[in-house]
Amino acid sequence: MQRTVDVVIIGAGVIGCSIAYQLARRGISTRVYDKNQIGAEASSAAAGMLAAQAEFMDSRPLFDLARQSRSLFPALAEELKACSGVDIGFVHHGLLRVARTPEDVLTYQNMASQHVGLGEEAQWLSPEQALELESGLSPSIHGALYFPQDGQVYASQLTLAYAQAAASYGAVFQEFAEVQEIIEDHGCVTGVRLQGEVIPCSNVIVASSMWTQELLSKNGLHVPLFPVKGECIAVKSMKPLLRRTIYTDGCYLVPKSNGEIFIGATVHPHSYDRKVSIGGIAALIQAAEELIPSIRSAEFSRAWSGLRPQTPSGLPYLGEHPMLKHAFIASGHYRNGILLSPITGMLMADLIEGKPPAADLTPFAIPALPKQQRVKEELITGV
Amino acid sequence: MQRTVDVVIIGAGVIGCSIAYQLARRGISTRVYDKNQIGAEASSAAAGMLAAQAEFMDSRPLFDLARQSRSLFPALAEELKACSGVDIGFVHHGLLRVARTPEDVLTYQNMASQHVGLGEEAQWLSPEQALELESGLSPSIHGALYFPQDGQVYASQLTLAYAQAAASYGAVFQEFAEVQEIIEDHGCVTGVRLQGEVIPCSNVIVASSMWTQELLSKNGLHVPLFPVKGECIAVKSMKPLLRRTIYTDGCYLVPKSNGEIFIGATVHPHSYDRKVSIGGIAALIQAAEELIPSIRSAEFSRAWSGLRPQTPSGLPYLGEHPMLKHAFIASGHYRNGILLSPITGMLMADLIEGKPPAADLTPFAIPALPKQQRVKEELITGV
Amino acid sequence: MQRTVDVVIIGAGVIGCSIAYQLARRGISTRVYDKNQIGAEASSAAAGMLAAQAEFMDSRPLFDLARQSRSLFPALAEELKACSGVDIGFVHHGLLRVARTPEDVLTYQNMASQHVGLGEEAQWLSPEQALELESGLSPSIHGALYFPQDGQVYASQLTLAYAQAAASYGAVFQEFAEVQEIIEDHGCVTGVRLQGEVIPCSNVIVASSMWTQELLSKNGLHVPLFPVKGECIAVKSMKPLLRRTIYTDGCYLVPKSNGEIFIGATVHPHSYDRKVSIGGIAALIQAAEELIPSIRSAEFSRAWSGLRPQTPSGLPYLGEHPMLKHAFIASGHYRNGILLSPITGMLMADLIEGKPPAADLTPFAIPALPKQQRVKEELITGV
Amino acid sequence: MQRTVDVVIIGAGVIGCSIAYQLARRGISTRVYDKNQIGAEASSAAAGMLAAQAEFMDSRPLFDLARQSRSLFPALAEELKACSGVDIGFVHHGLLRVARTPEDVLTYQNMASQHVGLGEEAQWLSPEQALELESGLSPSIHGALYFPQDGQVYASQLTLAYAQAAASYGAVFQEFAEVQEIIEDHGCVTGVRLQGEVIPCSNVIVASSMWTQELLSKNGLHVPLFPVKGECIAVKSMKPLLRRTIYTDGCYLVPKSNGEIFIGATVHPHSYDRKVSIGGIAALIQAAEELIPSIRSAEFSRAWSGLRPQTPSGLPYLGEHPMLKHAFIASGHYRNGILLSPITGMLMADLIEGKPPAADLTPFAIPALPKQQRVKEELITGV
Repeated sequence: MQRTVDVVIIGAGVIGCSIAYQLARRGISTRVYDKNQIGAEASSAAAGMLAAQAEFMDSRPLFDLARQSRSLFPALAEELKACSGVDIGFVHHGLLRVARTPEDVLTYQNMASQHVGLGEEAQWLSPEQALELESGLSPSIHGALYFPQDGQVYASQLTLAYAQAAASYGAVFQEFAEVQEIIEDHGCVTGVRLQGEVIPCSNVIVASSMWTQELLSKNGLHVPLFPVKGECIAVKSMKPLLRRTIYTDGCYLVPKSNGEIFIGATVHPHSYDRKVSIGGIAALIQAAEELIPSIRSAEFSRAWSGLRPQTPSGLPYLGEHPMLKHAFIASGHYRNGILLSPITGMLMADLIEGKPPAADLTPFAIPALPKQQRVKEELITGV
Repeated sequence: MQRTVDVVIIGAGVIGCSIAYQLARRGISTRVYDKNQIGAEASSAAAGMLAAQAEFMDSRPLFDLARQSRSLFPALAEELKACSGVDIGFVHHGLLRVARTPEDVLTYQNMASQHVGLGEEAQWLSPEQALELESGLSPSIHGALYFPQDGQVYASQLTLAYAQAAASYGAVFQEFAEVQEIIEDHGCVTGVRLQGEVIPCSNVIVASSMWTQELLSKNGLHVPLFPVKGECIAVKSMKPLLRRTIYTDGCYLVPKSNGEIFIGATVHPHSYDRKVSIGGIAALIQAAEELIPSIRSAEFSRAWSGLRPQTPSGLPYLGEHPMLKHAFIASGHYRNGILLSPITGMLMADLIEGKPPAADLTPFAIPALPKQQRVKEELITGV
Repeated sequence: MQRTVDVVIIGAGVIGCSIAYQLARRGISTRVYDKNQIGAEASSAAAGMLAAQAEFMDSRPLFDLARQSRSLFPALAEELKACSGVDIGFVHHGLLRVARTPEDVLTYQNMASQHVGLGEEAQWLSPEQALELESGLSPSIHGALYFPQDGQVYASQLTLAYAQAAASYGAVFQEFAEVQEIIEDHGCVTGVRLQGEVIPCSNVIVASSMWTQELLSKNGLHVPLFPVKGECIAVKSMKPLLRRTIYTDGCYLVPKSNGEIFIGATVHPHSYDRKVSIGGIAALIQAAEELIPSIRSAEFSRAWSGLRPQTPSGLPYLGEHPMLKHAFIASGHYRNGILLSPITGMLMADLIEGKPPAADLTPFAIPALPKQQRVKEELITGV
Repeated sequence: MQRTVDVVIIGAGVIGCSIAYQLARRGISTRVYDKNQIGAEASSAAAGMLAAQAEFMDSRPLFDLARQSRSLFPALAEELKACSGVDIGFVHHGLLRVARTPEDVLTYQNMASQHVGLGEEAQWLSPEQALELESGLSPSIHGALYFPQDGQVYASQLTLAYAQAAASYGAVFQEFAEVQEIIEDHGCVTGVRLQGEVIPCSNVIVASSMWTQELLSKNGLHVPLFPVKGECIAVKSMKPLLRRTIYTDGCYLVPKSNGEIFIGATVHPHSYDRKVSIGGIAALIQAAEELIPSIRSAEFSRAWSGLRPQTPSGLPYLGEHPMLKHAFIASGHYRNGILLSPITGMLMADLIEGKPPAADLTPFAIPALPKQQRVKEELITGV
């Protein structure tokens, strides 16, 4: 009589669902619990960019992981469609990282050389060349770095597709089910507690965004994570304003396959607040106009926000917790959860199976920190 | 056997519904047709300000009419609640017309004297006095003219209340019923044509916003009207940001009794387009911030637009058409339809009954213009 | 130097906000934390009925408390409007509890006598009399018990009004702030822990709906509470279909002052799931049609659900926890949180002040239960 | 100097936009006017079924046209994606026409033979076979006729894709531009009148749904058309409930590629009313449950309605009006506008070019009827 599940995944965001899909495909008994609905948080708020080259200019470990993950999308889109019927909206029209200052120009040209040296496509475009590709761009830009392989998906549909495909392979999902505690015995996971009930299991994978921190604090562990709130808007335009994703430091514009353009995103570290402020909307509109002046007359469609989980190092946690056996963490993907979800699913499944993982996980190791004890008698500060 | 209705009203906006209410109360058989739903157009887009004093600084006829209309609201709110169960949300917390330049100061101080001379309350406030009343105001304002009697209602609920109260007195409403033509015989109205059917009637009142023009053109008449598109947003704030309506030339902020603040409105004459542009939203946010800096952190709630019907003179048409007997017009209230609806209802009911109207209608007379013949062979201009 | 707040309230629903309002008015330093926004959960899902007489046919303690609370609304509506500018939409058009079977008739007639004996208005109506009052009622009903004093409010506006009025008296609210733990020392509350920070305080009031249970479990206490999911729909009708609230065991219809009718509510005990199922919608429509046949042609407006916190006894918890000093509980109001909020606020403020409370709290005492230890090795049951 | 456009299309629904796309591709100067936004009416309300075989059991002309049109979709989806960037969501998972009575069985089996005889795929399935394909089907069905080639698209995205692709070939679209009159001279079209301006043109194509009738009545012509209102709902389900479209006489269920299922549609001939009634919603839920019992627990997503244009014969009008030269009609596609849009676009472009059309248009000829004169003195009937 089998009395336990192999793996309990806590969190049905894009990361938890991708892991569930990989595990279930490999025949491993898997349950996924989420305190809300599938993809309810950051996974649905994401613009769905697959900016493997544009995003990581400084971080080599993420850059490598991101390119590896991006390369999985073409096959994945087919698989998920076949298993689940859900279309993830994968397209790769390319992405332009726009130079807005003379300083950017040299930086981006160097970048292009490096990427080409690593075997990736990357092309420096003069302002004239950039406007030839995207005629809506402002003539005042200083050029652009063009990544023809960067693409995009529909973030919420990707999450749903993972979940339904996982379910088709036997994974069990329970929504509105908050795991309150990971049960351990002698430093080893034995189960999870869920609304008064205990579910025994051999392994736990915590993919709970920044809530991972609070959950593990009950086991005396400290996994530093914090939210970075981002606000976005979507606009519609009868006249097509752009075909490729436009990306700069303060703003990106992603043309979606239903004719909408997503404009994102503000950056508010340490904000748990989910409100979309009108100041945030005004800032997005201003930034978008600087890139695509005629977007000012586009029709407003909607506004939303999401809380992206960040770590102090900027690298996600991927691995087993060094102080709690069989407790795995896959959290802290910041704004790259969509892009990194395919490789994260594979790597975590490898770890569960005891296989050598498909990428070097050393940079993503979880630090061995006990729960912090704060001095209790702090002065109250104004709120 | 009664074969005709006394009055057919075309248009179930706030004006048409107010007229229906007054007619039905007086026992006059009334039918109201609308091509859409009750209050579907400008009546629901309005912020519901009753800015009788703040709005009309230059137009004496409108100023007098507006004050007369405003004075009807307290009793009307009670009547409508009793008849219909609908609460129109009438409050009169007052309104501040903010001076943003040194030039405004003198103008507004003169205005205060004039209003007081006419028996109305109006008080000039120094910047300090204004901030004492509304602490969220920008310290850089140059003072404010305070009208304690100006108030507000919920525009869509006012329209619904008129309609349901009219129905309780026997008026018949038909939504999604487009009147295609006013039938006339020897220069006198005999009925209306409606989706293939003819409804005989003794009088027609056209309260169809700028669509009044197109309808009467079928009778060879020209009633010049054009739309002025206005965009608005609503915000929410846990912290109450203001209590009174704030009004300037380019922007108004109306605190509603559900805790929302309406920010309006852009001005786009001759635009039939109903889209809310992100440029419009950005302009509203910027204007609002100049008045109430902390509103930048308020939560975005929604955005919408409306087409307000304007006339070349700026005065609404109120009266019988001089070239078509028993065809009455009540259209062109621009952004004052809510405020002017009570008096308009009474005046039009007086005209139908053959009573001397409660106000001098001379300034609001409909011009005797035949339908214009345009030269057909115009060049095509770019769209 | 004051280093602690007097009272921390956990939960900014209608109960927490009402308590904050009463405390702040009395000059007590108060902070309110909520993991989401003010009124985000059941408080905004409520239909806002004040069914003091109709709801509690069997429970004398609740009946007395409810009547006492209902009597506070007229003055409260004025106070809150003055303090906050928010209109709570208080009306008391009365309520009809409809008899659907011959058995109901005798029960309700007895009820009428009892209520009258207690000094409350209650009137038995024959089917004909009931239809005279509400002509839309089905002729197949067996009569109705009429409570002219039962009324209603807008639930979400009541919650906001409490909060803004409390803030005007100095209470501090922090939204999106999840309290993770109540800090205690030798069985006495000393503070709360909040996203890594400790807030010292003299008293804690937990008004966290069924989440109260999980929070107190961290202190080793068991406060049994469970959710009862309820689904609702709102409809619009140009034709007024009813004026008074209609109430039966399986369904209620509440005509709101904006012309909408709320139809509620399904009952799903122990469901944390917030989804509105189409089966639930179909059941509501069927139940509503049996009462008001013509409602079938009303226009669908929207659907929503809420999780109402219930206790095993059916009585809310109101008082100090017997095993943890200075930890007060005000949770478990089930579907009567709106109605009971005024008296709950007063009673809890009395307790904090050490005054004799305005009502006998014995029936509402919190049971002295330690946290339950479940056997961990349960078999997994299907999900 | 070119002074006229070749073709003015009135109506930017799926038909008008498809025609514009074909014309613009062929280099013909085209303008499209719509009184609202692109795809604002029935085109966006459609479920997007391409039920070429399932829909037309009795009408041979439509059956042939529908199959021809369906065969154009695979290439069209590619073309439109390339031109516009918009994905029309084309899939062909097949469709099951479910037999609900013993009588249906024989009818459908005969149908299968006929379709096969015409070279189309069609397969009769026993109840067991049907449930093997779609395990959610009710065991009480009597079998199903399976059409593997029937598919679906996203209706609103198809319309947008046509429009943007047409624009990329030079067609000019103007939204919120109501054509008030077709200008003619000696029985031949010379232009259109639009908000006071005359646009000269060589040809007019009226693709205005049932508003085509009103427009042509101004030219003294009668083109009989009437609306058939249909209400729909969309539901979501974590658990995939079905993969193929399910179709019966009273109800269809269409699984969309974002995981939603569309349930449609009620049938209300001659209703211009766009309201979604709760009676309509209840009827849809009941019908859906009879086919897929477990759909009762699916999550409600939204409800909407559309007005589908029908002709007395049930066949759309496709051709030149016999009494007005250069006035073409493409209206009355009832609920097959999405499916028939590709072939309609091609046929109308052929007519404009003077080419022999790709299908026999005789059955779709416009009748030569003058505008009807109704007796004016009809009795008023209750509303």
